[in-house]
Amino acid sequence: MSLNRIILGVEYQGTAYQGWQTQPNGNTVQDILEVALQKFSKSPIQTMCAGRTDAGVHAIEQVVHLDTPLQREMYSWVNGVNAFLPPDIAVRWAKEIQVDEQDENAFHARFSAYSRTYHYLLHNSSIRSPTWSGRAGWFFRPLNLEPMREAAEYLLGERDFTVFRAAACQAKSPVKHMYEIKIRQQGELIVFSLRANAFLHHMVRNIVGSLIFVGMGRRDPVWIRELLESRDRSLSAPTFMPDGLYLAKIDYEDKWDLPPARCENLPYGLSF
Amino acid sequence: MSLNRIILGVEYQGTAYQGWQTQPNGNTVQDILEVALQKFSKSPIQTMCAGRTDAGVHAIEQVVHLDTPLQREMYSWVNGVNAFLPPDIAVRWAKEIQVDEQDENAFHARFSAYSRTYHYLLHNSSIRSPTWSGRAGWFFRPLNLEPMREAAEYLLGERDFTVFRAAACQAKSPVKHMYEIKIRQQGELIVFSLRANAFLHHMVRNIVGSLIFVGMGRRDPVWIRELLESRDRSLSAPTFMPDGLYLAKIDYEDKWDLPPARCENLPYGLSF
Repeated sequence: MSLNRIILGVEYQGTAYQGWQTQPNGNTVQDILEVALQKFSKSPIQTMCAGRTDAGVHAIEQVVHLDTPLQREMYSWVNGVNAFLPPDIAVRWAKEIQVDEQDENAFHARFSAYSRTYHYLLHNSSIRSPTWSGRAGWFFRPLNLEPMREAAEYLLGERDFTVFRAAACQAKSPVKHMYEIKIRQQGELIVFSLRANAFLHHMVRNIVGSLIFVGMGRRDPVWIRELLESRDRSLSAPTFMPDGLYLAKIDYEDKWDLPPARCENLPYGLSF
Repeated sequence: MSLNRIILGVEYQGTAYQGWQTQPNGNTVQDILEVALQKFSKSPIQTMCAGRTDAGVHAIEQVVHLDTPLQREMYSWVNGVNAFLPPDIAVRWAKEIQVDEQDENAFHARFSAYSRTYHYLLHNSSIRSPTWSGRAGWFFRPLNLEPMREAAEYLLGERDFTVFRAAACQAKSPVKHMYEIKIRQQGELIVFSLRANAFLHHMVRNIVGSLIFVGMGRRDPVWIRELLESRDRSLSAPTFMPDGLYLAKIDYEDKWDLPPARCENLPYGLSF
């Protein structure tokens, strides 16, 4: 049987929500989005996302799919649904595809994605910044970029990331492939950009926390390699605050013809 | 009599507040700051600011002064007061000077300032952006920068800005000197930067609203000159939303030796 599958690009400011994944109290991005989709379509709709984000974490371009018999223009899936969404959540684009229910190779927001990019924004200043409140992490001691960049090299390639994995992580394997880590600075802001095939629970925030230990001189860069080899979560730095974390970009094969992502999908008009 | 005058650089995210100026309900930046100063100093403190901002308007570097017999290190005026402030308000720097009570030329946050810079951030996209919610204005039709830049030329110099003045404006004169207007773009973001000796109530938001009429092609650039000459508030465009307005920088003579402002004081690590 042929299904009408709608793919949505969704942006949200996660400060007010208990993360992406639906919960009994309903205060999650998925809950709010599904209520809006239900109001728009006048029927219950379930969504599947590319990357489940934690409480307080943001998304520049989360990708979501849903199946529906409803036939609507794409601009209606954007503007019509947005009319039912609060200011901190919005559908940015929509695309419709036909899929065969039996086809295991049909587009799937999660399983078709071959990599994900997260940005972590860190305000590095002795004094906290109100305009960055809820939008960036804050660290008050000076950080050196070069040791952090050197340390990040050890994280590239296929690695066992057990040491950066939260206890609650449900992933089948702790082995992920890290394709790229960029660490860039602009004034008081440091931006960590990580691209991997997939991420474990709290993995970016744990990596950022440990890189900060290196950047402040408390640990040498090689400590990151020792951490990886130890596979002992108790040895790495504490999980850094969610405020600065943005799910930026999900990569799919060109054959799906999704709207091109906006360059690196850096938030706030940042560019390097 | 010699007074101990403390000058503070204050940053705030104005979304939650009814503007700068103290009000009976107490929900203003000045009220919150003065309560924190009182807790820190254990005595009542009154502040004087350089530029009173409206409800929902932000500041990257508001300048404030206060008089107190209290002797404290400057880092205490920063960190000690910040301990009593919410995440969306912070003192970024402090400086102490000695002033003679009789000296009319003593430093005064408002009267010693010779110019002010405001930035207006506008998210220009057919679809609203949650990460910019409360942090930038939003306009959904495409805007052309060149006509807006051409129109802005008419605003430079000493002008009667009556047409861009709110009915409630208390300024003695509607004549202000506009030194500079920059209109720059980065991706979906347009930043209007205005520097003048002083601004009338709602002046930046009214100018931005009218420049948008030009940028969307609804009016020609010369319309801005006609508006100025008309002095008729009913002819200009509606006041644009406060969300994107930032009081960025107050200029004082070098002799006061205040901390150098961070370049243009653009928010969110933006640079052009």
